[in-house]
Amino acid sequence: MGSGKILVAQGGGPTAVINQSLVGVALEARRFREVTRVYGAQFGVRGIVNEDFLDLTQETSNNLELVAATPASALGSTRDKPDLKYCEEIFKVLRAHEIEHFFYIGGNDSSDTVRIVSEQARAAGYPLRAIHIPKTIDNDLVGNDHTPGFPSAARFVAQAFAGANLDNASLPGVYVGVVMGRHAGFLTAASALGKKFPDDGPHLIYLPERVFSLDSFLADVKAMYEQHGRCVIAVSEGIHDASGEPIATLLAKEVERDAHGNVQLSGTGALADLLCDEIRAKLGIKRVRGDTFGYLQRSFIGCVSDVDQREAREVGEKAVQFAMWGGRDGSVAIRRTGFYSVDYDLLPLAAVAGKTRTMEDEFIAASGTDITDAFRLYLRPLLGSGMPDAFRLRPAPVPKILKR
Amino acid sequence: MGSGKILVAQGGGPTAVINQSLVGVALEARRFREVTRVYGAQFGVRGIVNEDFLDLTQETSNNLELVAATPASALGSTRDKPDLKYCEEIFKVLRAHEIEHFFYIGGNDSSDTVRIVSEQARAAGYPLRAIHIPKTIDNDLVGNDHTPGFPSAARFVAQAFAGANLDNASLPGVYVGVVMGRHAGFLTAASALGKKFPDDGPHLIYLPERVFSLDSFLADVKAMYEQHGRCVIAVSEGIHDASGEPIATLLAKEVERDAHGNVQLSGTGALADLLCDEIRAKLGIKRVRGDTFGYLQRSFIGCVSDVDQREAREVGEKAVQFAMWGGRDGSVAIRRTGFYSVDYDLLPLAAVAGKTRTMEDEFIAASGTDITDAFRLYLRPLLGSGMPDAFRLRPAPVPKILKR
Repeated sequence: MGSGKILVAQGGGPTAVINQSLVGVALEARRFREVTRVYGAQFGVRGIVNEDFLDLTQETSNNLELVAATPASALGSTRDKPDLKYCEEIFKVLRAHEIEHFFYIGGNDSSDTVRIVSEQARAAGYPLRAIHIPKTIDNDLVGNDHTPGFPSAARFVAQAFAGANLDNASLPGVYVGVVMGRHAGFLTAASALGKKFPDDGPHLIYLPERVFSLDSFLADVKAMYEQHGRCVIAVSEGIHDASGEPIATLLAKEVERDAHGNVQLSGTGALADLLCDEIRAKLGIKRVRGDTFGYLQRSFIGCVSDVDQREAREVGEKAVQFAMWGGRDGSVAIRRTGFYSVDYDLLPLAAVAGKTRTMEDEFIAASGTDITDAFRLYLRPLLGSGMPDAFRLRPAPVPKILKR
Repeated sequence: MGSGKILVAQGGGPTAVINQSLVGVALEARRFREVTRVYGAQFGVRGIVNEDFLDLTQETSNNLELVAATPASALGSTRDKPDLKYCEEIFKVLRAHEIEHFFYIGGNDSSDTVRIVSEQARAAGYPLRAIHIPKTIDNDLVGNDHTPGFPSAARFVAQAFAGANLDNASLPGVYVGVVMGRHAGFLTAASALGKKFPDDGPHLIYLPERVFSLDSFLADVKAMYEQHGRCVIAVSEGIHDASGEPIATLLAKEVERDAHGNVQLSGTGALADLLCDEIRAKLGIKRVRGDTFGYLQRSFIGCVSDVDQREAREVGEKAVQFAMWGGRDGSVAIRRTGFYSVDYDLLPLAAVAGKTRTMEDEFIAASGTDITDAFRLYLRPLLGSGMPDAFRLRPAPVPKILKR
């Protein structure tokens, strides 16, 4: 080794804290005398192939701190999922620039990219240290207690449902909120942390970890509506029937809106609208409203967990330390060590790459439409400090005069 | 006068600060020796007719302060728009309970209810003091510089677009965000306050104050996409063609989704989805995403303007003072007196009731797809302190080696 050049990139969907990890790498790396340059690739792996690098060593620590506190990927991101050939291109560029350390901040796909590049470097006898830094609002990386980005998105979902519940209590009816997470229900489950009083919503939670049945759904909604005079429902965008068919697709067929064959169901408001249509039509409830949280839940500025911020910074710092002192490639992982405290491990890349974690059974209530206290205890510390709270007027009824 | 009984109620869509006004009334009223009881009607005017009153005099100031800081209507609200007969029922109950002061917190419709009840009391020779307290996220009450509730909703929209812009810069494409406001574009225009750098989005803003043309829209989007490699668009749910027909309805017809005759377009994600379909189909852009902010923009807990909180409290306090010392009924209004400071007037009810303010021409750019600096100066102080900010890495490109 000799060039002392480091490369860092960001991949996949942005989060509220992914820049903390970037800045963690940049600032920690500068503390090592063997590091001469910290490069940042623009727009993820695509920027590597195109040699679109920024020299982060020329940044001020002040601006780096400001960027760290800014959501979304400051370097730009990409949805490219490199195959072997793509990884060879990456490796070619790393070699040309004499990059000795490669840090890639991302989810499952990104860890797989790091794994392939790591193997190619080894096969070529090139001295590369390649480290994957975890990031995903879906919380679906195996080997991690949780992943940076998830706590802030979970906080948004919890706050959104706390507010939606208050709104729904003011003007009673049925409210359906559709939350991101195609395979893992963690983010949808976070809606339960918006609950304070026993009769607060969400009254029902539908996760991709359980099979969705429209008949059961309608029966559940009916029962809750009769009990509370209203019903707040959290639905994962990934709900599906027993065969794995997405519910959005099934409902769209049922109401015959699929005539053109090109009705897009993901990334749209369709699922919420279709479920609301069903409730209106089958249960005869008038005031039914649906929201799809969409990109707000991962991009909204000003809703961030301070715990998430600190940990996202730390996985970046630890990645550099593992790279410099660890002697092997890997994926940084968060391990919970107390209530509440964490430490960091370096897992083998093959242990994380391309695998998907879903919600553990202990987190899901037997009913299948609620979460357990175990999940509440798991998630609460991640949401951080200063969570907004909701209060009610206490009952002090005035005797009626005309209608006594 | 002699009973010393006051009644307060909340009407229409909830806001983040409507409970500040409620608590302003309750706490200020207790300072007057002639006030013996402060009643709160549950679920607006409907609660009056049903005599569903809470005795707020039995509340503690501590809990009232906590409720004040909680969004949505603590007393419950209603969408009922009372006619003459309904108002007679209201008046009957006020009389039976010897209510001498009636405060109704709400928008246009609520002010009209107060006006009718006020006239009925006068005609009956009953000594009632009736005051309307302004509230609406739409900012569409005439005679007001702005209305309580609007600043916090505007802050949500500005923060949402600041985040959406960062997300869109990370993964470039077209983003359409649909904002509430059927007739007034103030809330949609607030998206512009999420902009920091000259090339930030929203790059285009479509308001109900201007006629919407699909052809111009597509041409605008194409031009911006070519200039920036991406495009962030803010769209009011109320956009319409020259004849006043909502665009959502027109597009739904165009894509023949209206076969059942019952496709609901308001309160759904349909408009965003339809505009995205058009952009994909006509401009051939692949990454096109749409969000409908829905109820989040008025109900999200934890995104509130401290200026809005203070003013919402003050309109409640001033309402009581006007009632006790003013000698006439009316509608409390906010008047701007400095940059930035306000004072409060009591306008005649007829001057406010049932009228709708829309965005003044000086606030809309000549292009029709942007706002002016006058609007920026108007809105900025309302958003309050602690607005989150966005920062970028500075350019410091690394010379290419392979592709030089």
